[in-house]
Amino acid sequence: MAPPTEVTVHPLVLLSVTDHFYRVAKDTRNRRVVGILLGTVARDGSVQASNAYAVPFEEDAADPDVWFLDHNYHEHMFAMFRKVAARERVVGWYSTGPRIRSNDIKIHQVLRMYCADPVFVIVDVRGTDSQSQSQPQQIQAGGGSGPQQRAKIPTDAYVAVEQVKPETFGEKEWTFAHIPSEIGAVEAEEIGVEHLLRDVKDTTVSSLSTQVTER
Amino acid sequence: MAPPTEVTVHPLVLLSVTDHFYRVAKDTRNRRVVGILLGTVARDGSVQASNAYAVPFEEDAADPDVWFLDHNYHEHMFAMFRKVAARERVVGWYSTGPRIRSNDIKIHQVLRMYCADPVFVIVDVRGTDSQSQSQPQQIQAGGGSGPQQRAKIPTDAYVAVEQVKPETFGEKEWTFAHIPSEIGAVEAEEIGVEHLLRDVKDTTVSSLSTQVTER
Repeated sequence: MAPPTEVTVHPLVLLSVTDHFYRVAKDTRNRRVVGILLGTVARDGSVQASNAYAVPFEEDAADPDVWFLDHNYHEHMFAMFRKVAARERVVGWYSTGPRIRSNDIKIHQVLRMYCADPVFVIVDVRGTDSQSQSQPQQIQAGGGSGPQQRAKIPTDAYVAVEQVKPETFGEKEWTFAHIPSEIGAVEAEEIGVEHLLRDVKDTTVSSLSTQVTER
Repeated sequence: MAPPTEVTVHPLVLLSVTDHFYRVAKDTRNRRVVGILLGTVARDGSVQASNAYAVPFEEDAADPDVWFLDHNYHEHMFAMFRKVAARERVVGWYSTGPRIRSNDIKIHQVLRMYCADPVFVIVDVRGTDSQSQSQPQQIQAGGGSGPQQRAKIPTDAYVAVEQVKPETFGEKEWTFAHIPSEIGAVEAEEIGVEHLLRDVKDTTVSSLSTQVTER
C-alpha cells in the first residue's frame, strides 16, 4: 500500500467535526477538539475520509507534554462502527487546530497503533483563513479551480515523515509533511447535500450562504 | 413536558442517515435502515434532532412480526455518545421507509424504553416523492414557503397516539399521528453547510445540485 498522497474529506465528516467543535469548545478561547477519521485508502494512496467520530481529548495549554487521548474510547467506538460499516477502517485523525500544535506529532504516533500510515487533517471550523465570515465580499465560489479555489477549502492534510537531523549526528525525527486535501462527495452524499442545498437555505440558513449560492 | 409538536432535522442527521442507507441497503430492493435520533426537546414540544447513529436492524419482508432492533447496541452507543455530548438525549428514531411499515408501531414501543414520547422520522433518502431525481425541471427551490415548499423536504415525522377503537368495545390501540417537520440548521451547522455550498459544488457534486443552486 502506497503512503497517503491526498485526502478527500466527505461532507459528513465536515459536519461531524463542526458539530463536535461547537458542542465542546465553542465558547473556549484556545481549545480544539480531536477525533478519528474512518474511510478507505486506494492503492495509489488517495484517502477517502468518509466518516468521523469525536474522542475525549484533554491537553494542558501551558505544557505540550501533558495531553490525554482516550484511546480506550476510540477502540470501543471503532468496534461499534464496524458492526454497521464493515468496510471502513481507521485512516487517520482530525483536529480543529486551527494550526499544528507541538504535541500533534506525538498524538500521531498513537494513531499508528491503529493504522500503518495515518493522515492528520486539520479542519478549520472557525473559518480563520482569508475567507473569514466578516469578509463575505471576498468569497467567490467560481467554477474555476487552482490555488485560488484550493484556498477556500477549510482542511489541511498531513502525513508523518521521518527526517534525518544533521545537527544531532543523523538522529531521525518525525515531522509532518503537507499533502493535498479537498472536500468531495460520492453519489450517496450528493443526494444528501442536494437536499441541504434545496431545503436548508430557504429556512434558517444565514445570509452569508445565501449570498454565496446566489452569486 | 409537552408531547412533541414538531421536529427540526439537522443537516448532520440528514447526511448520517443517507450515508447509513447507502452503506447498507443501496443495492437491495426493499430494505430500509433504522437508527436513533439524539437531540433536545423544548418546553413547547418542538424537537431538535441534531445527531443520529445507525443501529443494526433486521426484518423479515414476508412477516412483519419478525424483526430485530439491536437495543444492546443502542444502549452501548448512547453511553459512548453521552461522553462527548452530555446534553443530547434520545428523542426518537429514524427509518428510511420510504413509508410507515406495519411493524413500525412495535419498534416505536421499544423506543419508549429510552424516551417517554419519542418521535419517528422517515427520511426519504431515495427522493421517491414528487421531486424525484429524474425530473429536475420540477425542482424550484424558491424563497417562498408554504405547502409547495414543504413537499420538497424529504422527512416525515410522527408521534404515537392511543386511539379508542369502537369496533372492539373501547379497546385502545397505538397508531401514528403526523406532525410537521423541517430541515434546519443552527449557527454551527450553517458554517459547515456554507463550506459545503462553497466547496462541494465546484468539485464533484452532480449537475442536478448545480442546477438547483444556479437557479
